[in-house]
This record gives sequence, structure tokens and C-alpha cells, in this order.
Amino acid sequence: MEITLTPIATVTNKRSTATDDFWGDTISDITLLDDIPTEALDHIEEFSHLEIIYYFDQVDPARIVFSGHPRGNTDYPKMGILGQRKKDRPNQLGICTVELLEHTGRTIKVKYLDAIDGTPVLDIKPVMKEFNLKGDIKQPAWVADLMKDYWK
Amino acid sequence: MEITLTPIATVTNKRSTATDDFWGDTISDITLLDDIPTEALDHIEEFSHLEIIYYFDQVDPARIVFSGHPRGNTDYPKMGILGQRKKDRPNQLGICTVELLEHTGRTIKVKYLDAIDGTPVLDIKPVMKEFNLKGDIKQPAWVADLMKDYWK
Repeated sequence: MEITLTPIATVTNKRSTATDDFWGDTISDITLLDDIPTEALDHIEEFSHLEIIYYFDQVDPARIVFSGHPRGNTDYPKMGILGQRKKDRPNQLGICTVELLEHTGRTIKVKYLDAIDGTPVLDIKPVMKEFNLKGDIKQPAWVADLMKDYWK
Repeated sequence: MEITLTPIATVTNKRSTATDDFWGDTISDITLLDDIPTEALDHIEEFSHLEIIYYFDQVDPARIVFSGHPRGNTDYPKMGILGQRKKDRPNQLGICTVELLEHTGRTIKVKYLDAIDGTPVLDIKPVMKEFNLKGDIKQPAWVADLMKDYWK
């Protein structure tokens, strides 16, 4: 089974290379592509946060491995790719929860999007409290170390 | 630009029709498809929660409208499709944060997945505290009413 998708929008920001860290001060514009009518964004500013699904279009599928050390750091244990969030992954999909700063016509301005300039966007969804996760998050110890500079 | 994706796994559960509410007691198995090696799930059980990206394969693309009343309820204001989470949407992608109950070989058992039996899964990502949203969630008043029976 193959599924064919078409981007609905594109990211514009000052990040041109896919480096791992320091996303905290990146502000991005997400602008609808021509095939999507402006009304698709109507009243989206009533939400403070959005989930963005995007496509890691710069990934070389040949680099995708199914198990390995996160960021190649052997201080971290080997993990299956579905227990990591790295971009070199099957289907090359990224998700990020962002803060919506502004909506003007066919563009939304967002904070905390970890996608580079030119990234194709596949979907935008509003964050609703009712979809918040239930219970406390448990995660392995290496995650805190790996993420320590991510939002700086 | 067209993007071609291939499902990595399939949902098995007791929900065969895509009704809106009462997802609270649905337990689902997500099983890897043949092309994905078992090691893709290695150590995933060290995480308590996962994000599942799936494909609403039963949606008729002809039904997708870019603005409308959520659930067709005229008590709610008209919203752009990107300010709603309904399944009839461009690219037909769903995201859900689930609780991981068990990992055995090529299958994970999860709670709080709002996808029906047979749904193709495109990606599985671990929930990491560091990706939690920053700041309080603001949302329009109609959301609480729309969601009141969702997880019952």
C-alpha cells in the first residue's frame, strides 16, 4: 500500500541547516500553498498552540537505520528507531507542538518549531486540552542529557 | 510536489466504525508490517507514552471541506479545517498520544488511540518531557462541549 500526500504549506525561517540544538529562539512563518484556500486557517488564532506535521525532505532514505545509539553517542544505549525522534526515520515525518504568535491571512507565525527553512508542512492541528496525555511521563535517563541544549 | 509514504504498522482493535466518541476503554494492538524489522521497536517500553501518526484511510477525499461547523453542529462557530481535528482533512493524517501498556516482539499494546481496526500507521515516536508544550493552553469554549464524551 502506498499513500500519496501533497504539502499544504511551507516553513520560512532563518535556519537553513538541520543541526540538532538551539531551537529556542527560532520564529517561523508557515504559509499556505496555492492549492489551499485561505479559509482553511479561519479563526485558528483562537487556539494558543498547534501541532505541525511536516516532512523531513532533506533526509537521505539510505541513511535510515532501524536501531542505533541516539545521535550516534555510545554513552546512550541502542534504541529502535521508533523509540527515538531523530529525523532519519521511516516515512520522514516530524511532529512539533508550537506556540501560535500571529495569524495574518495565509500565514501563521509560530515559536518552537524545529524545522528548517523550506520544510514542507503536511498538516496543522489545534492543541486541545482534552487530548493532553493521561498520567506521568516515564522516559529513560539519557533523554534529559540528549535534550539539554535543544530549546536553548 | 508529491510525497509517497508506506505504512509501517497496522492497528487491531474492536472498533470497526469511525464514530466520534467513547474511546476511553479502547485497547489497541499496533503490529509492525513485514518490511519493518523487529529491532525498530527495541527498548520502546522504556517510554510510558507514544505519539502515533496514522492515516484515515476510510475518508472520502471528496468530503473534505476547508471551513465549516465542527461536527456539523451549528451551535459551534465556523472554523477553518486547520483549526479542527476532524478526520476529513487534507492529507488525512491523524495524531494521537497514547499510553504504552506492553511491548512484545513486533507488537505494542496501547490505550487512548482513537483509530479504528485496520488503520495504517505511518510513524511511532516516544513522548519526551522536553517536547511538552510551553505555557497554558488557550482554546475556544466550544471545544469542551465537543469533547465531553470523547474519552468516556
